[in-house]
Amino acid sequence: MLGIALLGSGRMAHVYGPKINAHPMLDLVTIFNPNLESAQRAASQYGGQASSDLEVVLADPRVDAVVIATPTTTHLEYIQACAKAGKPIYCEKPLDQSLERTQACLTTLEEHPVPFMLGFNRRFDPDVAQLQAAVRNNEIGALTFLMSWSREPAPPPIEYVKRSGGYFVDASIHDIDLICWITGERPVEVFAAGSCLFDPAIGENGDVDATMTTLKMPSGCLAHINNSRSCAYGFDQRLEAFGRDGMLQTSNHRDNNLIRWDATATQAKQPLKHFFLERYDASFYFALDEFYQAVSEGRQPSSTQHDGKLALEVALACERSRREGRAISL
Amino acid sequence: MLGIALLGSGRMAHVYGPKINAHPMLDLVTIFNPNLESAQRAASQYGGQASSDLEVVLADPRVDAVVIATPTTTHLEYIQACAKAGKPIYCEKPLDQSLERTQACLTTLEEHPVPFMLGFNRRFDPDVAQLQAAVRNNEIGALTFLMSWSREPAPPPIEYVKRSGGYFVDASIHDIDLICWITGERPVEVFAAGSCLFDPAIGENGDVDATMTTLKMPSGCLAHINNSRSCAYGFDQRLEAFGRDGMLQTSNHRDNNLIRWDATATQAKQPLKHFFLERYDASFYFALDEFYQAVSEGRQPSSTQHDGKLALEVALACERSRREGRAISL
Amino acid sequence: MLGIALLGSGRMAHVYGPKINAHPMLDLVTIFNPNLESAQRAASQYGGQASSDLEVVLADPRVDAVVIATPTTTHLEYIQACAKAGKPIYCEKPLDQSLERTQACLTTLEEHPVPFMLGFNRRFDPDVAQLQAAVRNNEIGALTFLMSWSREPAPPPIEYVKRSGGYFVDASIHDIDLICWITGERPVEVFAAGSCLFDPAIGENGDVDATMTTLKMPSGCLAHINNSRSCAYGFDQRLEAFGRDGMLQTSNHRDNNLIRWDATATQAKQPLKHFFLERYDASFYFALDEFYQAVSEGRQPSSTQHDGKLALEVALACERSRREGRAISL
Amino acid sequence: MLGIALLGSGRMAHVYGPKINAHPMLDLVTIFNPNLESAQRAASQYGGQASSDLEVVLADPRVDAVVIATPTTTHLEYIQACAKAGKPIYCEKPLDQSLERTQACLTTLEEHPVPFMLGFNRRFDPDVAQLQAAVRNNEIGALTFLMSWSREPAPPPIEYVKRSGGYFVDASIHDIDLICWITGERPVEVFAAGSCLFDPAIGENGDVDATMTTLKMPSGCLAHINNSRSCAYGFDQRLEAFGRDGMLQTSNHRDNNLIRWDATATQAKQPLKHFFLERYDASFYFALDEFYQAVSEGRQPSSTQHDGKLALEVALACERSRREGRAISL
Repeated sequence: MLGIALLGSGRMAHVYGPKINAHPMLDLVTIFNPNLESAQRAASQYGGQASSDLEVVLADPRVDAVVIATPTTTHLEYIQACAKAGKPIYCEKPLDQSLERTQACLTTLEEHPVPFMLGFNRRFDPDVAQLQAAVRNNEIGALTFLMSWSREPAPPPIEYVKRSGGYFVDASIHDIDLICWITGERPVEVFAAGSCLFDPAIGENGDVDATMTTLKMPSGCLAHINNSRSCAYGFDQRLEAFGRDGMLQTSNHRDNNLIRWDATATQAKQPLKHFFLERYDASFYFALDEFYQAVSEGRQPSSTQHDGKLALEVALACERSRREGRAISL
Repeated sequence: MLGIALLGSGRMAHVYGPKINAHPMLDLVTIFNPNLESAQRAASQYGGQASSDLEVVLADPRVDAVVIATPTTTHLEYIQACAKAGKPIYCEKPLDQSLERTQACLTTLEEHPVPFMLGFNRRFDPDVAQLQAAVRNNEIGALTFLMSWSREPAPPPIEYVKRSGGYFVDASIHDIDLICWITGERPVEVFAAGSCLFDPAIGENGDVDATMTTLKMPSGCLAHINNSRSCAYGFDQRLEAFGRDGMLQTSNHRDNNLIRWDATATQAKQPLKHFFLERYDASFYFALDEFYQAVSEGRQPSSTQHDGKLALEVALACERSRREGRAISL
Repeated sequence: MLGIALLGSGRMAHVYGPKINAHPMLDLVTIFNPNLESAQRAASQYGGQASSDLEVVLADPRVDAVVIATPTTTHLEYIQACAKAGKPIYCEKPLDQSLERTQACLTTLEEHPVPFMLGFNRRFDPDVAQLQAAVRNNEIGALTFLMSWSREPAPPPIEYVKRSGGYFVDASIHDIDLICWITGERPVEVFAAGSCLFDPAIGENGDVDATMTTLKMPSGCLAHINNSRSCAYGFDQRLEAFGRDGMLQTSNHRDNNLIRWDATATQAKQPLKHFFLERYDASFYFALDEFYQAVSEGRQPSSTQHDGKLALEVALACERSRREGRAISL
Repeated sequence: MLGIALLGSGRMAHVYGPKINAHPMLDLVTIFNPNLESAQRAASQYGGQASSDLEVVLADPRVDAVVIATPTTTHLEYIQACAKAGKPIYCEKPLDQSLERTQACLTTLEEHPVPFMLGFNRRFDPDVAQLQAAVRNNEIGALTFLMSWSREPAPPPIEYVKRSGGYFVDASIHDIDLICWITGERPVEVFAAGSCLFDPAIGENGDVDATMTTLKMPSGCLAHINNSRSCAYGFDQRLEAFGRDGMLQTSNHRDNNLIRWDATATQAKQPLKHFFLERYDASFYFALDEFYQAVSEGRQPSSTQHDGKLALEVALACERSRREGRAISL
C-alpha cells in the first residue's frame, strides 16, 4: 500500500478523493488545506486525517507520496516543499501558466529528483490510450495527419477566462499534449487562427472562443486542433489519426446508447457526457494507477514535468501566432 | 442483343420499361396489353411497338424473350402461351396465389421447358446478394439463426387486402423465399402468430397486420420473419444471419446520410427509402441482367418456378399455423 | 445508513461486496457462510465481520437488511429464516428452479410480509431502464413487437447445464422477465423452437443451445426471444421495441469505441463486453440502490417474488412447448 | 427538349454522354472532337452525330446549348467560340489553371452574356446539397467551423502532377469552392501547410501530397481543408459544419452496407466508392439538370465563372502560403 497525502480540498480534490479510495493499493492518509475546515469537510467524506500544516504532513512516516490538487498558482510552492521532503509527486496540470515558473518547477525536480507525474489525464482515457498504442505499434503506418477536437459545452465565466492565460494555454494545451504524445514528436511550426463568436466579453478581454491550429511535426506529419468554448450538443471530444495504412477515430460518449426511430429521424437522444469530469472520469483513476505503478517500480511516470513544459511552450507559440497572424517556428 | 416483348403496361411494367432500356444488351421490341391504348401510352414512353395481339407478338422473329408484368391472375395464361411459343420467360412474382394454378404453371414448363425466371427481385439487391454469398461461402460458419424484417410504411387499401391471399401469401412470401435461398434449405416446420393492431378493417376481413413466424430448417437452423403492415419510420428492411463464426447484418437505406447533432439528439433526419420500388430499385435491373445472362448462356436462371411454388407452400402453412394456433409440419 | 448482512461468499457475493461498499448509504456489517473460512476471506476483502451462525447474524441489531447471494437451492431456507426475523431481503435470482419451492417462497413472504426484492438486475441497466421508461411513457405508441437477444460467448460446462433446469429456465428467464416488465403484460401463449448446434453433450442431455421463442401478449403485442449458448463475437445483448409510432433499440457495449479504417474494412476491433458480470456491472449497483430506496421509503421494491414466479412459469411453458412441438396457452 | 452539342469525346465526355441520355429533357445532337474518329466512336455509344468542325456544330439550329468536356487548356478557345455563337454553355471545371486566362473567360462572357455554368459537380451531390441548404436555412445557427476532407485513393502519375498546377489548384479547389458556397463568403486570409509523404517524385517536383489549410472568413467562421493524395481505405470525402446550434456531417459511401461481426471485429468490409467518378456519379446528372433548368428559365445557373475565378484565386494563395510559410491575406 502507498500512503497518500492529498494536497487541496477543492474541486479537483473531490475528483481525486474517490479515485484514491477506489484504488486497492492507495491509502488516503491525510488531506491538507491551509483552511483546516475545508480539509476537515473533505476528510469526513473520503477518510484520512485533516491538516493545515504541510510540514507535519510531509514529516508523517505514513505519507509515501503526495497528490497535488491545489490551485495552479500554488503548484510551484508545493512541488518545492514535497520534492525537498523526497516525496514522489502527482501534480494536477498545468505546472504553471508562466514559462518562468514552469522552468522553476523543472529546476527544483532536477535538484530533488523524486518521481514526478503531471496529470495529463486524457492520455489515460481507454479510447485515447488505445489509439496512441495502435499508432505507436505502427498499425496504421507512418502518420500523415492527426486531428484533435475539444469543444466545450458552454463558455466559462469571464472571471475564469481572465485568469486562464488565454484559450490556448487554458484548453488547447490538452490537445497539444496528446499530439506530442501520440506522434512522439515536438512541433517545429505552429499556425493558429481564432475568432470570438460566442461570448463578446471574451473578445473584449483580448481572447478568442473558437480556434483552428495547425502544427507541423519534424516527420512531415501535420496536426490540427479544433477548439470551441461552446458546443450546442455537449462536450465534443474526438481524435482522428490518419496514417499511410489506415485511420483510427475515437467517438463521443453517452450515458446510454438507445437508438430511436420515428417518423422524423433515427436518433440517439441521450446527450453527450456533460464535461471533462464526466467524460474523462475513468482516466483520473488510470492516471493515479500509472503513478502508483511508477512509484512501485521505482521509475519515472509516463507523463512528466517535461511534457508539461513542452505543451506550455507550444500553447504560448499558438497564442503568439494568433495575435501576430503568422506562422511561428519553434 | 436480346429482343424483349413486355407483357403488361401497368405499374410493374413501368418498373421494367426503364430497366430494359438501361440494360445495354436488352432491346424493347413490343409492349403488349389487350387494351391497345394503354400499350401505346407505355410504348411512347419506353419505345418499341404497341400491340394488343399476343399471337402476333409471339410470332415476331425479333422477340427473343418475354417479360410478364401483368396482373397475377393472368400469369398462368401468358406463361402457357409463351412457353408453347418457345420463348424464354421472365415472370413477375408470384406465379399465382393458388397452389393448384401454380402447379399448372410448373406442369406447363415441364412440357415446354423454356428458360424461366421468377422475379424474386430482392435476391438481386446488392446487400442481400452479398449476404447470401457470404453465408454460402461459409464466411460465418454453419447458420444458427436467420432473421428477416419487412415492415411496410402503411397498410394497403382494404380492397387490396381482400384480394391479397392473406398477409403471409402477399408479403411474407418474400422473406420465406430469402430464407430458403440463403440457407439453401426447405423448412420442415413453421409456427406463425399474428395480430391485427393497425387497421381494424384488416382484422374484420379475417387477416392480420403484424406477424412473427418461426421456421425450422432440417439443419437445425431457426429462422424468424417479422412482418408489419405499418411502420412509423418508413420501409424497414433488414436481414440478420447468425452463424457459428459470426454474424452478418444488412442496414436500411436513406436518400442521404447527413448526420445532425443538436442540443436534443444526434440524428439522421432523412427518412428511409419510401417503399419497395425505391428501396429495391436497383434489384429489378440486376434481376433482368440475371435473366439476360441465363438466356445467353442457355442455362436456367437462379430464381425459378420451383422457388415460387416452395415459397407459396410455406406461406400457406404459415397462414394455417396462425389460424389453428399450432405448429405445422411440412 | 442501512446495515447489510451479506449471505454467501461465492461468485455472486464477490459481485455484491464491492457494490455494497460503493453505495454511500449501505454498510456491510457481516458476511455469512456456513463455511467460516470462506466468509472470513470475503470479509478481509470487503470489510465487516465474518460469521457462520445465521441466528447470530439475524439477531445483530446493526443488521437492518440482508442480501442473499448463496446457491439457488438454499434460497428458500434463507428467505424463510430472514423473513421470520423481519429483515428486508434482497435475493439473487432465481427464487428456485422448481415451481413448488418458488410458491413456498411466496407463501413465506405472505405470512411474513417483509420488503422483498428479487435481483432481476438487467432491469436496472441504464439502457434497458430507459427503453422501458420510454415504452411506458408511450413515446413509441402501443407496442407491436418486442424482441430480446441474449447470446452467450460460449457454452457452460456440461455439469452446469445438467443442474441448470434447462436453457429456458436457466437463461431465457431473463428475457421473459424483461418482456413482462417492459410490456406490463403476462403472456397468454408461448411457442418455442430449439436446436442443439454448438455442444453435442447438451443435446445428449436432452437440452438445446439455440432457441427462438414467440410470446403472445393479451394486447396483441408479439414478443420474440433469441437465445444462443455460443456467440463468436462475444456477449450479444440487444432489445428492440417496435411500436405504433416508432422503434427503440439498445446496442451492445465495448470497452472502447475506437474505429479503424484500413484497406480491407472499417471496423471496431474491440470485442464486446465479455459476459454478464462485465456487461451488466453497473446494473448490480443500481439494483441495490432500488432496494435501499424501497426499504428507506417503506415500500415494496420494483422487482419482487411475484415477478420471479411469473418468469419461471413462462420459462417452464417454453420448455414444454419445445418438447411437445406445439404452442402452449398460459 | 434542349439539343446538346457535346464538345470532347475523352474521359469526361464519357461521364456526360450517359447522363445527357438519361435526362428526359436533354437531346444529344452532336459530339465534337477535332479528331473525327474519336467523336465517331463516342457517337456510336451515346447517339447523335459526330463532327470535327466546330463552326458547323454551332451553326446547327438543333444545337440549343453546349457541354464542354475537353482538356482544360482548350476551355478558353471553346468558350469564346460558343459564347460568340450565343449558345448557353456548361463547362467542365476548372476554367483554366492560369488566372490570366481565367479572366479572359470572364471577359468573353461579359461581352457575350450567355448562360454559363461551371461544373462544380460536388455541389450537386445530394448529401452536400442538403448540408448546404441546412446551413443556409440557419438550421445549425451561425457557422463557427467548416471542415472538408478529400483524400484520394492513390497518387496520380507524376506526368499528371507536373501539368496539374500544383495540389491546391488541382484538387483543393473543390474544397475551396464548397467552403465559399456553403458559407456564402469569400475568405480574407489563408494559411496552408504541406508535406510530401507518399510519392517522393511529387516532392522532387516541388509539390506536396498531404496538406492542411485554414481559411478565415469575414464572419469569423474558420474553415479547414484536409487533402491527401493517398488513402489506404479508399476515397475519403467528408464535410463537417459546426454552428452555434448544432453540427452537420456527411458520411462516406459504400456499394453495400453489410455489417460483419466476428471474433476479431465488427466491420463493414465493403471498400469506399473508388474515386470521384463513382462517389459523385449522381452529381453529374444533377449538375446537368441545374443547367437545363437555368437555360429553360432564362436565368444564370447556380455555379458560374465567377465561382471558378474565386476558387482559383484562393487556391493560388494557398500555394503561395505553403511556399512562403506564412498566412496570406486576400
